[in-house]
Amino acid sequence: MTNSTLFTSPVLTWLDNQGKNSDIVLASRVRLARNLKNIPFPNRAKRSDLIQVKELILRLLPAIETATNLHFEYIEIDKLNHLQQNVLAEKFLISQKLINNPENRLVLLSDDLSVSIMVNEDDHLRIQCRAPGLDLDSCLKRAFAIDDAIEAYLNIAFDEKMGYLTAYPTNLGTGLRATVLLHLPALVITQQISKIINISPQLGMTIRGLFGEDSLGNLFQASNQLTLGFKEEELIENLSATVQEIISHEHDARKALLNYSHDKLENRVWRSFGILKYAHSISQHEMLNLVSKVRLGVDMGIIDETKADILNLLLIAGQKNYLQNLNEMDNMTPQEIEKQRATTIRNIFSQLQNTPTP
Amino acid sequence: MTNSTLFTSPVLTWLDNQGKNSDIVLASRVRLARNLKNIPFPNRAKRSDLIQVKELILRLLPAIETATNLHFEYIEIDKLNHLQQNVLAEKFLISQKLINNPENRLVLLSDDLSVSIMVNEDDHLRIQCRAPGLDLDSCLKRAFAIDDAIEAYLNIAFDEKMGYLTAYPTNLGTGLRATVLLHLPALVITQQISKIINISPQLGMTIRGLFGEDSLGNLFQASNQLTLGFKEEELIENLSATVQEIISHEHDARKALLNYSHDKLENRVWRSFGILKYAHSISQHEMLNLVSKVRLGVDMGIIDETKADILNLLLIAGQKNYLQNLNEMDNMTPQEIEKQRATTIRNIFSQLQNTPTP
Repeated sequence: MTNSTLFTSPVLTWLDNQGKNSDIVLASRVRLARNLKNIPFPNRAKRSDLIQVKELILRLLPAIETATNLHFEYIEIDKLNHLQQNVLAEKFLISQKLINNPENRLVLLSDDLSVSIMVNEDDHLRIQCRAPGLDLDSCLKRAFAIDDAIEAYLNIAFDEKMGYLTAYPTNLGTGLRATVLLHLPALVITQQISKIINISPQLGMTIRGLFGEDSLGNLFQASNQLTLGFKEEELIENLSATVQEIISHEHDARKALLNYSHDKLENRVWRSFGILKYAHSISQHEMLNLVSKVRLGVDMGIIDETKADILNLLLIAGQKNYLQNLNEMDNMTPQEIEKQRATTIRNIFSQLQNTPTP
Repeated sequence: MTNSTLFTSPVLTWLDNQGKNSDIVLASRVRLARNLKNIPFPNRAKRSDLIQVKELILRLLPAIETATNLHFEYIEIDKLNHLQQNVLAEKFLISQKLINNPENRLVLLSDDLSVSIMVNEDDHLRIQCRAPGLDLDSCLKRAFAIDDAIEAYLNIAFDEKMGYLTAYPTNLGTGLRATVLLHLPALVITQQISKIINISPQLGMTIRGLFGEDSLGNLFQASNQLTLGFKEEELIENLSATVQEIISHEHDARKALLNYSHDKLENRVWRSFGILKYAHSISQHEMLNLVSKVRLGVDMGIIDETKADILNLLLIAGQKNYLQNLNEMDNMTPQEIEKQRATTIRNIFSQLQNTPTP
């Protein structure tokens, strides 16, 4: 890899706070699942099958570069050490499944990390395209361009009735999973989030906490539930419209907080800032909950001593493998990690303070 | 009153952190109880008796000024409004008892507030002399000088066998109560404080929380238990020696914390600093516990973003009547007071930061 900051920088262009509705939607992602015709799915493939897929895809790198106008590199997962593998997962570029069986698994990464294509994960190909803010359209457009470039050379498993064939039936049809990463602190504080989660299936949407755990950091992922019976554009349009509704509810909840609990909110926001800025040891859990409140404070104009990016940066920089990799130590104790996390947070705070506001 | 800052400044020269052992002993106080011969104690006195005492004492003001080389003023307690009365109590200059029955009650205050003489409290005279750090000797010397100046003109109730007669038998004999104000965070954290409190009676000492409540702010008052059967100098020498022992235990406990829990302590100190510095609403209880940790951090060289004085200043500036008086409002809600307290703390932090270290 020539991308020297891949494992050491928390900055991701697709998480840079510059997109549409970036105050609430941190990022958009479209993922297409594709499989090569007449080769077993990876979980049933022989070693030679996996190697064949790998080699076929690598030959297509130039075509993918032309289609996207991006420079790509590929990483063989089993050539990475444990920390590097996990840093890629913490950066949302690969899945834990790819790490669990690293042999003959690849990830193709565009230089700006907006495209990551996993090879031999559940499906032969998982084409992932990302953009900051709410922008599923451009993600889909790019994913289609990559898919077209691949399908121009390779036969893809496709059934006239069913659509694209996938390892799991949940992806059958379009093979599309569109996801937006949402920051919904006001809906959590005003206890409206469970209502939204409860009705989401009726809207064809799945919404869940980013870190599995309920509402940790007030971060949620909303995805399309159906993959079959609709065109990709329809699925994305539906998800975008539903997300727009959620954004509008979050905005209303923020206004209500300002009107009815301004002082309480202000106190919470500033206390969170104080702890986050000065703690010398902190868990990821506490960090996420504090930085969410700080971010809310920035978004609502309560606090101007830091920038909204603090959330985006800590989302990556506060993770344990990233922190250990920074120290080139893969055997740090939980205490050492919590200390390193606090140091990293303080460094990022001082960087954000020194940068002049544009 | 010409002392325009009496009700609006939290600064007290006898609490200025410049005395001996000021890292642990915030202040020393000697109080002498005296009563005029042939006039009933205040709780049994007629109105005319109280007026007589008042007038006799006021005539002696010039003599007291000469004896102490300090300028004095007197305040009639019933001429103060409720907030002003309580600010004087919060500044430890008068007692709540003096406020409860304000008519014909006085306090004589030296300009530097190191001397406060209550007239017609439990006893006709309560001569209180204070100094920063551990310095009971100079307090006693000044209290004696005042007592001598008074006894040169007035007959004081004295019994050859019993000594000075006082309203309560607990003050009989010398009428002396020597008290030091101690900050003992490490003894509290290491859970040794209860041992010290338990053995204190055997050492002729009473030790209790400054705010009654157990160990709030890790602030304690240690006083002599006996007033009878010893000379004043002996009582003070005994208390000073015992306090020196406590100081040495506190120093040992601080060293132990540095050696065995450095990271934990550092984390606690800095988090306390972060909350205290940025909270927008805070109770007195929480403030005292946080500022105690910040002060410990300053004393131990863990934190240099503020000064040790933060504890001394907030001890006064964080109290509710002081805060209400600043706002010239005597009907602030608890929420308004907590908000004003946080604002005041932030102002004091920024003052302490801007002052160059000597």
